[in-house]
Amino acid sequence: MLHRGTGSMNARPGMQHAAERLDAIERFHVLSILARARALEEAGRSIIHLEIGEPDFDTVSPIRDAGAQAILRGDTHYTPALGLPALRNAISRFYAQRYGAEVEADRIVVTPGASGALLLALSLLVDPGDEVLLPDPCYPANRNFVRLLNGSPAGIPVGPDSRYQLQAVHIDRHWRERTVAALVASPSNPTGTLLELAEIAALNHAVSARGGVLIVDEIYHGLTYGEEPSTALSCGDDILVVNSFSKYFGMTGWRLGWLVVPPRFVDAAERIAQNIFLAPPTAAQHAALAAFAPEALALLDQRREEFRRRRDFLLPALRNLGFRIPQVPEGAFYIYADCSDLAGDGMKLAQSLLEEEGVAITPGVDFGSHQASQHVRFAYTRPVEVLQEGVARMARFFGRHPLRS
Amino acid sequence: MLHRGTGSMNARPGMQHAAERLDAIERFHVLSILARARALEEAGRSIIHLEIGEPDFDTVSPIRDAGAQAILRGDTHYTPALGLPALRNAISRFYAQRYGAEVEADRIVVTPGASGALLLALSLLVDPGDEVLLPDPCYPANRNFVRLLNGSPAGIPVGPDSRYQLQAVHIDRHWRERTVAALVASPSNPTGTLLELAEIAALNHAVSARGGVLIVDEIYHGLTYGEEPSTALSCGDDILVVNSFSKYFGMTGWRLGWLVVPPRFVDAAERIAQNIFLAPPTAAQHAALAAFAPEALALLDQRREEFRRRRDFLLPALRNLGFRIPQVPEGAFYIYADCSDLAGDGMKLAQSLLEEEGVAITPGVDFGSHQASQHVRFAYTRPVEVLQEGVARMARFFGRHPLRS
Repeated sequence: MLHRGTGSMNARPGMQHAAERLDAIERFHVLSILARARALEEAGRSIIHLEIGEPDFDTVSPIRDAGAQAILRGDTHYTPALGLPALRNAISRFYAQRYGAEVEADRIVVTPGASGALLLALSLLVDPGDEVLLPDPCYPANRNFVRLLNGSPAGIPVGPDSRYQLQAVHIDRHWRERTVAALVASPSNPTGTLLELAEIAALNHAVSARGGVLIVDEIYHGLTYGEEPSTALSCGDDILVVNSFSKYFGMTGWRLGWLVVPPRFVDAAERIAQNIFLAPPTAAQHAALAAFAPEALALLDQRREEFRRRRDFLLPALRNLGFRIPQVPEGAFYIYADCSDLAGDGMKLAQSLLEEEGVAITPGVDFGSHQASQHVRFAYTRPVEVLQEGVARMARFFGRHPLRS
Repeated sequence: MLHRGTGSMNARPGMQHAAERLDAIERFHVLSILARARALEEAGRSIIHLEIGEPDFDTVSPIRDAGAQAILRGDTHYTPALGLPALRNAISRFYAQRYGAEVEADRIVVTPGASGALLLALSLLVDPGDEVLLPDPCYPANRNFVRLLNGSPAGIPVGPDSRYQLQAVHIDRHWRERTVAALVASPSNPTGTLLELAEIAALNHAVSARGGVLIVDEIYHGLTYGEEPSTALSCGDDILVVNSFSKYFGMTGWRLGWLVVPPRFVDAAERIAQNIFLAPPTAAQHAALAAFAPEALALLDQRREEFRRRRDFLLPALRNLGFRIPQVPEGAFYIYADCSDLAGDGMKLAQSLLEEEGVAITPGVDFGSHQASQHVRFAYTRPVEVLQEGVARMARFFGRHPLRS
């Protein structure tokens, strides 16, 4: 409607400005799979969803009820920027009860999802040109948070030999002049593997010795199927820990997480949170207060057992199909599988499986570039009988398409 | 617990890293006033809150009920990153109905609060070292969003002569080589003044001619007390518009807003939103679907009339006390007042008023640096009888403290 002027000395006529980061921030490839799956469903096809990183369970009723009640009684105003004091205290008590870890409520920042916690953590650390070490493969948004802040994500190739995790030796080998932080996840998405506490301590030692800071993503804590892991917070108060109400607590769409910061960052974290978030969602915070009650935890632990049953079915079934899964995934709800004995390319496999058999999976390219095209990720976020049907369809698919080798 | 190693060549022993932006991102000064006010209240003092930028009303019941019902029926899973299609369509229809503006749902991104919309808008535009023009005074977080993205906020002094708004002439005068955008608000926080559509068109012309992009914050739309303003979207599809369910729709703690982007930014906005937000809160989106129903809008318009009554009481009362308010605030729920005939310094005035009379107001320094210390902001987010008591207390205060001149 408005015509462009001829501009001034410093005009850039005909070229409307856009930030350079726009080219760098990647789309999640799985969303094209998901969109195609939805289109096929709308056309009447039956789709087995093994691509979705979200539990199929609804939020448990004690948490739902607490959220709905807060809304109905009018508790929908802003809370303090760092979250309701009662919730920060409840999280602090949870660390004491479940982990025997002393984590002062003052250091706990309630955030809009773990997404908010990751943004806040990296904004405390990353200046333009700074580098953050990440395992490759890892959760794809991590790279893009670093890019949003004009930093440079450095994916370190990891494989079965380090359980797909960064180790102190990687820090020693890859730390550079502009490296400021390392970000790891235990349990990991997409691999489901854990870091032991001694490994986290060694990572933190290696990072701290270089003046850097370690960030540990614990959003899949609670969803582990062996020994209960320790929190990285047991290693000292200089690690930043990200957590979430989405996964174990089953509160995905409520968008609530938290960040634990070292004491020296509390003031800055509050300033940033009040500016960029104002506050986390209020009803979600009231709902989350009910998540630590014994009856809610009992329901959540039942769900953990259901995830364990799913993993225990799907892991051997995928191996039987010919996927290579050298490390048993001990947590989260993912299996990261090497498909190179079955197919040439994970993305093409995902597309063909969807088109021919209606099985939706996530291509490895979403998680990095290290051997990414020979991997795919399975999410066991559907009941065992659905997983069984998915496996049967895949068996049929691979029967028709034996590897051309 | 872990001792620091002696480090490698590039170690920075004894200095744990922190981002440079931490020194630049400012605390909201009003929060120290608010904290002191709460402490006085807990000690039994009666406090008149004129500092809080949040309506005292609870969310209206049709919206509350819709949110609670969504939760109870289990609608708490992730939505698409850009928001529920039904909500994006409802916002599009609202633009058509209320403004006669055609705004395609495809261009509407539902965000975690207007905070999320501001972050997303600026992340589309600002690279390190880029400059964004803002009026001084303005909403303080705007400067800090720019700093988060390593840009440079350039506050342009504005006063009553331009109704505290940027005009095209400011763009002509202050645009520099690294300037990429201008961010204005209509109605403005803290001044309550509006931009006319012709002024927005002229601003957009001036900005576009230089290859830049105009962002218009319309979060106080709906809360105006004269002629209903037009939306900046009527000027063309190259302006970014921020809006919110917090103010007119009364949904502060739900954390829901939206951003309208030019067509060329839709793809990038989706990539950024899916990475940094995953999705906006689900229950809030279902609640917001009820906000456009006639019965909800009727309740919201009643509240607008209540705000008008409050403004119509408070504006002449403050002028009678000796505050200079050269421009009638036509929207939002703020009065930005020059206190230089009454006190030497707005921050000291805010502190003394709180200590001596229990009246809490916001110092002008929160909003910028241009004549900031001679201004304070009043929020009329309390009933008229509370405002009356606040005015009576201030009259007593100024009776005891006539200006020393």
